[in-house]
This record gives sequence, structure tokens and C-alpha cells, in this order.
Amino acid sequence: MKKILVLIAMSLSCHVIGQTDADMLKEIYKSALVEGKSYTWLETLSLDIGGRLSGSLNAERAVNWGKEELDQLGLDKVWLQPVMVPKWVRGAKEFAYIKAGSGETTSVNICALGGSVATNPLGVTASVVEVKNFEDLKALGEAGIKGKIVFYNRPMQADLINTFEAYGGCVDQRYMGAVQAAKYGAAAVIVRSMTLNVDNLPHAGSMTYGDLPVSQRIPSAAISTKDANLLSSMLKLDTSLQFYFKQNCKQLADVKSYNVIGELTGSEYPDEYIIVGGHLDSWDLGDGSHDDGAGIVQSMEVLRLFKTLNIKPKHSIRVVMFMNEENGLRGATEYAKVAKAKGEKHVVSLESDSGGFTPRGFSFDCKDDTFNKVLSWKPLFKPYLIHYFEQGGTGADVGPLKTPENVTVGLRPDSQRYFDHHHAANDTFDAVNKRELELGAATMASLVYLFDTHGI
Amino acid sequence: MKKILVLIAMSLSCHVIGQTDADMLKEIYKSALVEGKSYTWLETLSLDIGGRLSGSLNAERAVNWGKEELDQLGLDKVWLQPVMVPKWVRGAKEFAYIKAGSGETTSVNICALGGSVATNPLGVTASVVEVKNFEDLKALGEAGIKGKIVFYNRPMQADLINTFEAYGGCVDQRYMGAVQAAKYGAAAVIVRSMTLNVDNLPHAGSMTYGDLPVSQRIPSAAISTKDANLLSSMLKLDTSLQFYFKQNCKQLADVKSYNVIGELTGSEYPDEYIIVGGHLDSWDLGDGSHDDGAGIVQSMEVLRLFKTLNIKPKHSIRVVMFMNEENGLRGATEYAKVAKAKGEKHVVSLESDSGGFTPRGFSFDCKDDTFNKVLSWKPLFKPYLIHYFEQGGTGADVGPLKTPENVTVGLRPDSQRYFDHHHAANDTFDAVNKRELELGAATMASLVYLFDTHGI
Repeated sequence: MKKILVLIAMSLSCHVIGQTDADMLKEIYKSALVEGKSYTWLETLSLDIGGRLSGSLNAERAVNWGKEELDQLGLDKVWLQPVMVPKWVRGAKEFAYIKAGSGETTSVNICALGGSVATNPLGVTASVVEVKNFEDLKALGEAGIKGKIVFYNRPMQADLINTFEAYGGCVDQRYMGAVQAAKYGAAAVIVRSMTLNVDNLPHAGSMTYGDLPVSQRIPSAAISTKDANLLSSMLKLDTSLQFYFKQNCKQLADVKSYNVIGELTGSEYPDEYIIVGGHLDSWDLGDGSHDDGAGIVQSMEVLRLFKTLNIKPKHSIRVVMFMNEENGLRGATEYAKVAKAKGEKHVVSLESDSGGFTPRGFSFDCKDDTFNKVLSWKPLFKPYLIHYFEQGGTGADVGPLKTPENVTVGLRPDSQRYFDHHHAANDTFDAVNKRELELGAATMASLVYLFDTHGI
Repeated sequence: MKKILVLIAMSLSCHVIGQTDADMLKEIYKSALVEGKSYTWLETLSLDIGGRLSGSLNAERAVNWGKEELDQLGLDKVWLQPVMVPKWVRGAKEFAYIKAGSGETTSVNICALGGSVATNPLGVTASVVEVKNFEDLKALGEAGIKGKIVFYNRPMQADLINTFEAYGGCVDQRYMGAVQAAKYGAAAVIVRSMTLNVDNLPHAGSMTYGDLPVSQRIPSAAISTKDANLLSSMLKLDTSLQFYFKQNCKQLADVKSYNVIGELTGSEYPDEYIIVGGHLDSWDLGDGSHDDGAGIVQSMEVLRLFKTLNIKPKHSIRVVMFMNEENGLRGATEYAKVAKAKGEKHVVSLESDSGGFTPRGFSFDCKDDTFNKVLSWKPLFKPYLIHYFEQGGTGADVGPLKTPENVTVGLRPDSQRYFDHHHAANDTFDAVNKRELELGAATMASLVYLFDTHGI
């Protein structure tokens, strides 16, 4: 009898919690879709500010804008956290063409990769050797590579459903391509843009020289997929063709920048933190609407929703606009360092950095107990078509905060269109759908609410 | 012991079936994403042919194109099924403005609704009465309505997650608005466009006069949401303002058109049919890429996949390009009539008519036993992020085929962007993402494969 009473009590208690949670999620989604601010915030960040590469004036403008907007939300604390960031500048627009043996030239679309050195002022001209991967380099050896431009042309794999997986399978060419080719004396590298689309847009992104001495660093650029296909097919007809390109990008001294942080202080566990964030910097070719303007405004919206719906969190909830995710991760590293130094216990860190598309769910890095707790919340998300709850990689900016005890989470939006825009000139405000963006914010706020209410 | 052996046998058999199914689905998705034809087909249908309203020359071109493409797929049979369709023509571009009491005019964007009569050649000018629904009409009565333009301005509800539900909650204004307002002597009706976006595009769509005598039929047009908001706010300041519009659309005599049908004849049950389809006609303002070019090319792709992957179906599989879904449903009605007359047993009828966006799953109209069988297939779809399997409404064109025994199904893509484009000038090829379209086709082919293999 006692057992039955306990069961009844438990079921009643669960029922009440369940109802309250469902009602609260409904309020959250309604407010985000009906009176949400994420889309108008993104409009300002994208159209009035625009691309905001670390260390640029626009990044500084974005920091000021972020702080001003958070100030207006009526949070308990808003502050700037200083951090030194790298400053790489693209310089004048890059210029490139293919020169056939006949002397005929064909212009192609390229962009310098972030961190690359310039060509010499007159540009680099060399014959081209096409490879698919670093094994191909090894097979060719110095004899096949020295003095040539190495052209990495391994496409993203179209039959992978998750386009981030296809990206992960290719991005070594962009990030490590120069340092690998330089070993064999290559003159420069050209890398097929990381997109599944075939179009004219080169896609930027970071690259590294590792510990290569300055004197051995070679210029590195991305070429549009359409031009990569063109170059590849021309090479099949004319192996002696030459490629010319010129870029005058430069790495300058580090400059001071900031993470922008706002906090709603917790009523029960003020010293335990649940954070939501994205990165405030972006590449410079577009206006960074999907990468990661979307994550910034969705994270802001989470705190707006808590304020508007008068949710008094038990834990302290922070929005963190990380600086310099794209080419350094300095903001995230600094944030984690300060948190550790202050002994701040970060319970849950949620990042949105996969575009402002229709949310499908989350990926979690956490203990199995926590993950099972999360799975028990799955029915609460069903009315919002949120179905993806998986363990796995979460996000770059929350990575440094990970401990064996805590939880890091990544929002997982629909990924099909993401790499059409990623790091390219068409990562612009018009590519973001208002409702999709708002649904992402509501989904994040719902998860934060559940973690705050029920713990990890 | 016997029981255990049976269980083991069942489990082994299930395991084998499961593996085969999973492998086949993988092949289907791979082929659709790597060598699929849906996107290039859609490019031709959208850009070379374009909008194809029933009875138009373009609809005739689309019929010829559809037959030619099916002929090239190497199916067992391809044919045209004649059907008489209504022919409504828009005529010259509509023209409209708001005239304030001061005499100042403001141009606004409208389009005649499909089936509407013209205004008189000089246009209609009248004062405006704004309503939200038919109850408002009743409250106003003839005294408040006679001689006026009734302006239906109930917006789609933004906090509904499924935008089709929001559409369903509003479309009575468009379809029945004229016949309801005419009862009270209205001069004309203007209807807020059926979209959640606020923009300048009027959205077409069908309307009815019911059994209203010709002499009592009043012109009916859609106004863009931005202009609906403008008109509404101007009315609040100046109730005496007048609205002017002119349209010279016309209903002509019915003309002959066709459903386009292709078939792979079944090896075991040639007289039992599984069909996939969409509608070949579209509204005229855009090129009908999402509505329903996408459904057409996805249905074609299902049969291409069966051919390419050498899947020999047990049942006969048909692709049906229905004519005249938008303003008559004559094609679907005729197809079902002929099927019934010939005693053709339609086991499963799957329709794609909700846009070419990322597929999320299906809605089913079927017996519980069948639905439970479908639910047992859910894990097979998980790698493709297909999660939505619900009972409920399926689709207009498969509706006439429904019997108590058989199954009708609707593909359910992500619905967030659909009504941004629906029936408007921006329902164009550039709004369709190649991968999203292809994933939809693969998802349809997978379900058809499973029904063909395991029955209903």
C-alpha cells in the first residue's frame, strides 16, 4: 500500500512538473515567434555592421553594439571581458587566372585563406599539380611538386546526410594544405572551396603554417567549386597550363578585443552557471548572418525570453558573445581561463554555431545519466518537431569549458543549406528565414529552462 | 522449445530483412544525392517552361515535357490520360491604390484570385470595411457592408509550428470571402495574402462563388501583407478612405488537358498499384517550383531510382502527374474515376505537394495495423533524419483514391519557408535547394520500396 501511495505521489508530482514544463515551453515558443527580437537584432548586426573579422573596426563596432543591446535587456550584469586577438587583413581583392599553353587566360574566383601570407607583389605563376589528399603529395614527392602550385580538389561527399560530416572529411586540405605542400617545396596552394554547391563563390576559412619557419610559408587561397571543376578539366587537356594569382593579405600584431557577457543571477545557485553563446566575429566576405550572427542573436533571445516571461532562474544564466572563434578561439580560451581562475562552476554550456536554419535538436557531451535525463524531456519537444538528441561533438567555443562533470551542448539546425553560405560572400541576412531563426532561439531557451529547473 | 525456435527464426528473419532494407535505403539516398535527376528536371520545368496554369499553353508544354522525360526513363508504360480542365485567365496585370480623403493615392500590390470575375473595365472604387472573419460580416450586416469593399485581414497565426495549420486557419477568407460578403451586398473583396512574411507580394489561390448567380458575383483579389498592414493602419486614421482596383481576369470554356502517367509493372502483383505523384499545373505568378514542380520531379525520381538501382517491384509502381490541382482537382478526380472503372486496386498513394524543402517524414491516412507497421520502419529512416510519422490529412490529389482499405500518404517537408513562396511571384527555382529536393525524393522512394517489399 505504501509502495502504491509512493507511486501515486511520484506520478502526481511528475504530472505536475510535466504540465508546467509543457506550458512553459509553449510560452517560450509563442513569445519567440510572435514578439521575438532575434531577427531585428540580426538585421542590425548584419546590415548595419556587417562582416566582423577579429581585430577589425567592424568587430569593435559589433562589441559595442552587443553590449548596448544587452544593457537594454535589464539583466543583472553586463560586461566586457578583454582578450588579445590576432589581426589578419585580406588587403586588396585577390586576382587569379588560368593561363593555357596557347597563352589564352581565363579569370577564376579565389580568396586568400585566413592566416595566409601574401604572394610577392607581382603575384605567383606556376604550373599546377592536382591532388586529392596528402597521400597524393607523398606519392608525387619533391620531384613532382617543387616549384608548382598544389591544387587540392577533393570535394565534399554528397551522400553524407549531415553536411558537417562532409565538411569534416575535407577541411584538412584547407587547414593543413599549405604546411604539407611546403614540405615538398610547393610554390603555393589552391584549395577547392568547402561547399557542396557548384558556384562562383570562393569560401574563406582559417589555415595554419604549424611550426613552419616564416621563410618557408607559401601563399594559400580557396578557389570556387565551379572554377575548381574548370581548372581540373583544363588540366586533363593541358598539363602544362599555368596558374597565376596575387593576394596581399597580412598578419598584423595582436590587438585588444572583448567577449561580451550578460548575466541573470540565479536565485538558488548563483555560483553555478548555465551559459548560451555564439561567436561575435565572422569572416569578412559576407556579413556573417549564419556564421554566427544567428548564434549571437539566438543566445541574446534566450535571455530576453527569460526576462519577458518572468522566469527567475535558479542558476545564473549567461549569454556569452565569444570573440575570435574563426581564426584563433582566443575569446573562448580566455573565457574558460577566467572562469577557472574564479572557480566559477559551469554546469551547462550551450552553443549555437551551425547556422540559423530550422532547429532539429542538440548534440551533447555529458555523462550518460544526464543524457538519459535529457532523453526523458524529448516528448516535451515533440510539438516543436525537435527530435535530434545525440551524444557527440558540441562546439568550438564551449570546448574549453568542458570538464568530466559538466555538460556542453550544441544546437543542431538543419544542415543542408549551411555550406552553401559558409564563409562566403553570400552568408548574408537575406539567407536567414525569420521563423527558422526564432524557432532555434526558442529551442535553446527551452533546453536552458529544463536544465535550470531539473538540473543535470 | 518450439516457441524458442520460432522466436529465433523470426528474429533471424527480421534481422536479414532489416539489413537488406537498411542497405537498400542507403543506396537510394546515395543515388538521389550523387546522381539524382530531380534538380535538373526542375530547372527545365521551372526555367524553360515556367508557370503553368490549367488550360494554358504552358500547361500543355508541361504535359509534353513530362511525357518525353518519362519516355526516356525506360518504364514499362507511359501514357496521357485526357481530362477536361477549367481555363481561367488573369489578363492584364491588376492595378490598385488607396485613396485618402485628402485625395492622395498610394499604390498597392494585388492579384486577382483564381476564379474571380473581373471588375468593370474602369475598375471599382468604394470605401472599405475591414473584417477578421465571417462573424464580423454578420455583426456589420447589410447596413455596414452594402456597396463597400470588404477587406479580410486575419493574419496567419505565427505561433503555430506547422505553417499549414496556420494556413488552414485563414484560407476560408480567400476561398469563401466573396460569396459570404456578396450576401450583404459588398462591391468587392480584398483578402490579406496567405503568408507569414510581411512583404510586397500578393499570393494567388483559388476562390469560389458557390451557387451564387452570375449577376451577384463580385471581384475578389489578394493584397500583399505589407499593403494589408498599410491599408489597416490608414483605415484607423481615415475610415472614409477609398480603395480602387481593376482586374480583367476571365473564366473561359473548359479545355482538354492530361494527367501524365508512367508505370513500372509489378512482378508479383501487377494489378495492385503503388503510386507517387504531384500536380503538374501551377499558379501563374511564379514558376511553380515548390508548388508543385518539386513534387513532380521527386515523383519522377522515385521511378528513376527504381530503374537505376534495378529494383524490380512486386506491385506496379506508377508516377502520376496530376493536372489541375490548383483550381479544380479535375485530374485527380478523373484518375480516381478511371481507376475505379477499371477495377485497379490502389494499395498506396503517396503525394508530394508541400514544397521541396528538407523532408521530415510523412502523414498517413490508413488503418492502425498499417500505421504500426510503418512505425516499425522508423529506425530505418533515422540516419536520414526522417522522424515525423503521424496519422492525419495526406493530400488533395490522392484524396479521391482513398478507400477504407488502402493507404494515402503525404510527404511532410519542413514547412517554415513554404508560405513565403506559396502561389506568389517568388515561387521560383532559386528558392529550391538541390539537396533538400533530392532528400525528399529519396525519402519517398524509400517508403515506396518498403511498402512494395512488405505490403501494407
